[in-house]
Amino acid sequence: MEPISRIVPHFQESLDALKERLLAMGGLVEAQVHTAVRALVERDRSLIGRVTDGDAPVNRLHIDIDSRCFTLLALHQPMATDLRTIVSAVKINTDLERVGDLAVNLVEAAERYLKHAPVKPLVDIPRMADLAQAMLRDALDAFVRRDTVLAQHVLDTDDEVDGLKDQVFRELLGSMAKDHGLIEPALDLILASRHLERIADHATNVAEDVIFIVSARDVRHHAWEGGPGSE
Amino acid sequence: MEPISRIVPHFQESLDALKERLLAMGGLVEAQVHTAVRALVERDRSLIGRVTDGDAPVNRLHIDIDSRCFTLLALHQPMATDLRTIVSAVKINTDLERVGDLAVNLVEAAERYLKHAPVKPLVDIPRMADLAQAMLRDALDAFVRRDTVLAQHVLDTDDEVDGLKDQVFRELLGSMAKDHGLIEPALDLILASRHLERIADHATNVAEDVIFIVSARDVRHHAWEGGPGSE
Repeated sequence: MEPISRIVPHFQESLDALKERLLAMGGLVEAQVHTAVRALVERDRSLIGRVTDGDAPVNRLHIDIDSRCFTLLALHQPMATDLRTIVSAVKINTDLERVGDLAVNLVEAAERYLKHAPVKPLVDIPRMADLAQAMLRDALDAFVRRDTVLAQHVLDTDDEVDGLKDQVFRELLGSMAKDHGLIEPALDLILASRHLERIADHATNVAEDVIFIVSARDVRHHAWEGGPGSE
Repeated sequence: MEPISRIVPHFQESLDALKERLLAMGGLVEAQVHTAVRALVERDRSLIGRVTDGDAPVNRLHIDIDSRCFTLLALHQPMATDLRTIVSAVKINTDLERVGDLAVNLVEAAERYLKHAPVKPLVDIPRMADLAQAMLRDALDAFVRRDTVLAQHVLDTDDEVDGLKDQVFRELLGSMAKDHGLIEPALDLILASRHLERIADHATNVAEDVIFIVSARDVRHHAWEGGPGSE
């Protein structure tokens, strides 16, 4: 059976437009994370409002992309790789929207943190942020280019982020134990590092979807031929 | 055009089987959360291994459900509500798998916590756990029964969970400030409460999907008739 997606016109254009929107969504949430981390590291309170205000456009784009995915599925009833790509786009869109939420959580932690004197010069947290942002960019590039090598690189980088998170935790635990007054701000740094860890986790979810889209082709095609329960 | 889902036989049976699997997945991860919280509250180290071992069946069921969703989409090319139900099932399945991961995170926090004397009798954390588990159950019931009132109840309950999380945070901050020796175990309780908060968040994601499936019917149908970009 010829997939309907090859007969109905404009499918490829609509799919390309969907991918562009996902990249735009990725750019938007990455900028939100970047600004939130700047607020924390540069102690710049003026950036806090920019991030909280920036969540509404992220949510609007999230709804737009979700709607495009459903329209593509309903109108074109795609098969095989196209089907997996569009359903994965729904999942990736959800991951990106949560990254947007985490940028807001980050800036909330920053807002509390900035009420205190600095605990220490921040080194590991900006490093975690750089890694998490690069992972997001790479994961989306891998999605658009179907690049499983790049997707695997994203998965590998996640270990480095987890290592930094543990390092931040141990170090700040030490700071708290030594100095009572640091408990509150140190806790907010620990929470900030956990938000960054979760952002990196969302990037790994996207990378896993890419590997699924590309490498599950044969397996899923076989399952589809055999009918439900045959896999 | 008559939806293909009405012509191809066995669609309804396959969809019912999918819903049953999702309920089984929900039951599995809820049991994992329950056991992890028991390990923490009853200080029962023997339960830790049960939760870490219990993650593999959760992951197997996750893959099975994902595969069923793609098979249903490819074989039956459903429209409208059926399409939204199956794509939502992919998302709900992802949410449940992450709840399973969070049960493992919970039991890891419990394992560290049990190395210390108890910080305090645990009241709010078991309460959070009860609420989060009830939210999960209700959200899945709402999905199966298309019950938006129950889904809205889940969303409302999330405020109570957030309130408890803030209360736990403030109280344990006070304990840490008063007694150095409590910093480490109190931190693990704070982390445990954040894991429970995230479990409740996943339940709200499911509830939001239910409201989308049921109430977006007209909007999405209109979009489908009008073609991409018309919504």
